[in-house]
Amino acid sequence: DYPRKSGQILSGQYGINLLLLGFAFMLGVSYHGHSIKEKHLVSYITTLMLMQLLWMLWYIVRKDRQKHALPEKDAHAGTSWLRGGLTILAMLSLIMDAFRIGKYVGYKACLSSALVVYPVVHAIHTISQVYFLWFHIKDVIKTFETFERFGVIHAVFTNLLLWCSGAMTESQNVLDAHKKRLSALGFMNYTYESHEPYCNCTTKACSMFSNSLYYLYPFNIEYHIIVSAMLFVMWKNIGRTIEHHQHHIKKKPVAKTAGLVAGPILGFVALAGTIGVLVVYLIQVEATLETRTWAIHMFYQHGIVLMGSMFIASTLGLIIYRTDSWPQDSSKNPSRQLDKELLCGSAIGSWIMSWCGVVAAVASHSEPSYRWTNLAYSLLLVLEKYFQNLFIVESLYLKQEDEEEGSAREVEEGVERSGEAGMSSSRIFSVTSSSTQVPPYDGIINQAFVTQEKMCISLDGSQVKNSHLYQYQCQTPQDSPPLPAVSRTAAALNRKRQILRNIAVFLVLCNSALWLLPAFGCRPQYDNGLEQETFGFAIWTMVLNFAMPLNLFYRMHSVASLFEVFCHV
Amino acid sequence: DYPRKSGQILSGQYGINLLLLGFAFMLGVSYHGHSIKEKHLVSYITTLMLMQLLWMLWYIVRKDRQKHALPEKDAHAGTSWLRGGLTILAMLSLIMDAFRIGKYVGYKACLSSALVVYPVVHAIHTISQVYFLWFHIKDVIKTFETFERFGVIHAVFTNLLLWCSGAMTESQNVLDAHKKRLSALGFMNYTYESHEPYCNCTTKACSMFSNSLYYLYPFNIEYHIIVSAMLFVMWKNIGRTIEHHQHHIKKKPVAKTAGLVAGPILGFVALAGTIGVLVVYLIQVEATLETRTWAIHMFYQHGIVLMGSMFIASTLGLIIYRTDSWPQDSSKNPSRQLDKELLCGSAIGSWIMSWCGVVAAVASHSEPSYRWTNLAYSLLLVLEKYFQNLFIVESLYLKQEDEEEGSAREVEEGVERSGEAGMSSSRIFSVTSSSTQVPPYDGIINQAFVTQEKMCISLDGSQVKNSHLYQYQCQTPQDSPPLPAVSRTAAALNRKRQILRNIAVFLVLCNSALWLLPAFGCRPQYDNGLEQETFGFAIWTMVLNFAMPLNLFYRMHSVASLFEVFCHV
Repeated sequence: DYPRKSGQILSGQYGINLLLLGFAFMLGVSYHGHSIKEKHLVSYITTLMLMQLLWMLWYIVRKDRQKHALPEKDAHAGTSWLRGGLTILAMLSLIMDAFRIGKYVGYKACLSSALVVYPVVHAIHTISQVYFLWFHIKDVIKTFETFERFGVIHAVFTNLLLWCSGAMTESQNVLDAHKKRLSALGFMNYTYESHEPYCNCTTKACSMFSNSLYYLYPFNIEYHIIVSAMLFVMWKNIGRTIEHHQHHIKKKPVAKTAGLVAGPILGFVALAGTIGVLVVYLIQVEATLETRTWAIHMFYQHGIVLMGSMFIASTLGLIIYRTDSWPQDSSKNPSRQLDKELLCGSAIGSWIMSWCGVVAAVASHSEPSYRWTNLAYSLLLVLEKYFQNLFIVESLYLKQEDEEEGSAREVEEGVERSGEAGMSSSRIFSVTSSSTQVPPYDGIINQAFVTQEKMCISLDGSQVKNSHLYQYQCQTPQDSPPLPAVSRTAAALNRKRQILRNIAVFLVLCNSALWLLPAFGCRPQYDNGLEQETFGFAIWTMVLNFAMPLNLFYRMHSVASLFEVFCHV
Repeated sequence: DYPRKSGQILSGQYGINLLLLGFAFMLGVSYHGHSIKEKHLVSYITTLMLMQLLWMLWYIVRKDRQKHALPEKDAHAGTSWLRGGLTILAMLSLIMDAFRIGKYVGYKACLSSALVVYPVVHAIHTISQVYFLWFHIKDVIKTFETFERFGVIHAVFTNLLLWCSGAMTESQNVLDAHKKRLSALGFMNYTYESHEPYCNCTTKACSMFSNSLYYLYPFNIEYHIIVSAMLFVMWKNIGRTIEHHQHHIKKKPVAKTAGLVAGPILGFVALAGTIGVLVVYLIQVEATLETRTWAIHMFYQHGIVLMGSMFIASTLGLIIYRTDSWPQDSSKNPSRQLDKELLCGSAIGSWIMSWCGVVAAVASHSEPSYRWTNLAYSLLLVLEKYFQNLFIVESLYLKQEDEEEGSAREVEEGVERSGEAGMSSSRIFSVTSSSTQVPPYDGIINQAFVTQEKMCISLDGSQVKNSHLYQYQCQTPQDSPPLPAVSRTAAALNRKRQILRNIAVFLVLCNSALWLLPAFGCRPQYDNGLEQETFGFAIWTMVLNFAMPLNLFYRMHSVASLFEVFCHV
């Protein structure tokens, strides 16, 4: 059998090379030369998808045969709400495939047949992949390791390539729209060449299909990158030994939503405001030169307010974490590790745009009205991502409320774990609470009471002597009444958790809003002209082509992570 | 105190933003516009270097005061030969700084004073950094964690930025040389603009300084990236708890060099041949169009032979690993982890060039003589890196010979380790050997005999009953004579280790040769025209500007890793 580390390198390198060959095709397509056409790229991707289909089929059939053997599962991989969200995105992708086929029918005379095979295979691929995600993404593979690694990494990089190629097409669309807009406004030094097929459409729906495709692209792109991340976690899990001390006590959702007022309200205000800005921007930026400047100015002002409040919210969350010593969870968890790396990695896209904006605003020789608002916006954007990432990561490394309860039960079972796990269990913060007669303090449902009876233990039967003893002290009803100070601590902790949940919801909504803006064409980085003056059109377009897809992914990914924070806190 | 994971994110994000701001300056400089000039970039880098100097000073002074407290050290970080190599590179960097100052003196009239402050600060920075690397790189920091993290990550990203800016300048130089060459050959559609200062030199040595700088750049660039990687390991080590079971028994070097014949000879032949090819290429590619084609063809043929033999050598090594179950070392080791990631990460640069070459060779409409040799060369390059990486990673995860001996001693000490570490020690392969009277088998120096007396233990005094018992069985001289089969196994293992060492030396020399070629201007990717035809000049130059520095780093890094493999096996 192949050693684990070598198996990872062996398959990882295979995946990287798959992607790079696709990337070489993409570069050829984006040159619009004579050698490499879109059909070549599309044929290559279709081949990869077919290979993935075959592998998934083989995997599912084999798993179904082994139904008696209960497979090991990684509880952290692919939460059900994430899979639900992906299913919606996958449906939108299916609609997109239908539109693509419709477009092909219209332009049949001058399009290669590869362009109709692609959406058909893509639709089958999407359906099977969603099935696979629902029933197998949590599997921890233990047999045929090396072969399975190749299968999973093939799936990861096929989806990554689909993301890249989607992002490239979208950047191309946006750039075309931008050039069209500029030439409509009278800047004629940009030559606009259409990338539409060279024949007339035979059906009436062609332009409808083309325009709708433009709006569906963002969803398709996010679908592929998120699937790719989930499959990557599955790949990391291959051959892993899961520690069996994950207790998942189902909670009543009421506990989570109690006290959720300020966060959702402010968040929806931000979302509605952003949609308004989006619509106004798209209309005004095409009208005249004056309204164009005004629209850009408005965008930055709106951005400053939004970034400022998000920055304040994240900082508040971080301050709450600093005020108490919250219990940390340091157990091994590849999903969380990946989440962390993806957050910081994809933030790079937005940061590089921001720093370019800062440099351009300071160094520019022209003086548009939005010069200094651009500077302020860029700096706030850097800060906002910095502190939001910190807040998310700290929250994800927090010990979950129900896990705290779970570890009390472990003590009961006499489980003595060594090393890291042991350390984390000994650091559990005291949420000491007592007899069930005491009503929930201050109207808040205290989770520590709900499942207490089931797991009540007495370490040595004595009173709490040392208030610094960070361990559960569960007293039976016949014991003395609780110390009021301790009860107050629990309530204060609970109120803090509520504030954190409000912050999480607020940030979820703000990040959704900030995803909407660039996804639907509100990209002042193209329109403001400052960066273009400093870096030149070619370099700045290159930066945007790299950074924009990362930025979109960052927002989508932070929404997912913040939702997890909300469930987690 | 700040939690560890948050501390990492906090400082890591700071470092990324430092780099990105520098990157924004670099983009501005590479546009050659009116806003951002070289002096701005250089001032920014100088500021960063001064900050790093202050931090290093503070750190060294503080450590010197605490001399009584023996600091914890990570034995794997920054081996002495690596530090020695870096010292040589640093000296070449110092010569470069001197040349830069000399150049400034010549052009004083029209250069900003920032351009003389920079080499002076860089020289001081280089000297202090080398001192820091010699005496503090192994430190495992346990106090002031969050502050120290900022200091170390600042140093990491300052060096990374110095690498980026060096790589950019070098790419610019190569591109200029390429354009000059093309216009000399009569391709006048490339406008060649000089980036020399706009005034006459006042001293006689200016052109000498400029030309020498060109040859010193590659060393300076490698210096910064390797320092950056070493400091990154130091950053990862902050707050880490080192397991204290690293036994480092000094070996006689004779054991390592015995039987080293084929590897060094073949390697030196390859190195000499490559230097020949380099000289001939550089002369012929500038002469006429015919010799140009011939030179490119020769380059690819030479490359095919070299890549082919490297591929065979790595595969042979991997086959040797598959024939026996070699003991694996799975202990935690951030340097090794980073080595692995850097190898695969930097290979991407060369792979993307290769795949572009493959696509271009297949899709091209022109028919130069080197079309198919280019294809074969590109494919072999992909395979060579793929298997070389595998070979290096497998070798690094091998349990070291002297560690195997060390773990026998551990048994003696009654050390019972739990978890992963325990697993690895129980998987040690049987190198059962017996009384010292038996002469070394087959003329090969058997390491198992050399240090045997010192650590001989008897588990229970009885004979080896179960031949599958994978543990040391050390018999005292008064025991029965050894089983000849077992002795033969040990000798066979030793012969295999010799073959592996030969392979490592051969690959070290080949990789050095392959570093020399692009570092000194032999870059047929610019000259062959195939990729340029398929991807266009702008895109292809962009790809090369990204991939070439990575490729150079890959070769330098694989030389270092393979040298470690040689010491390790």
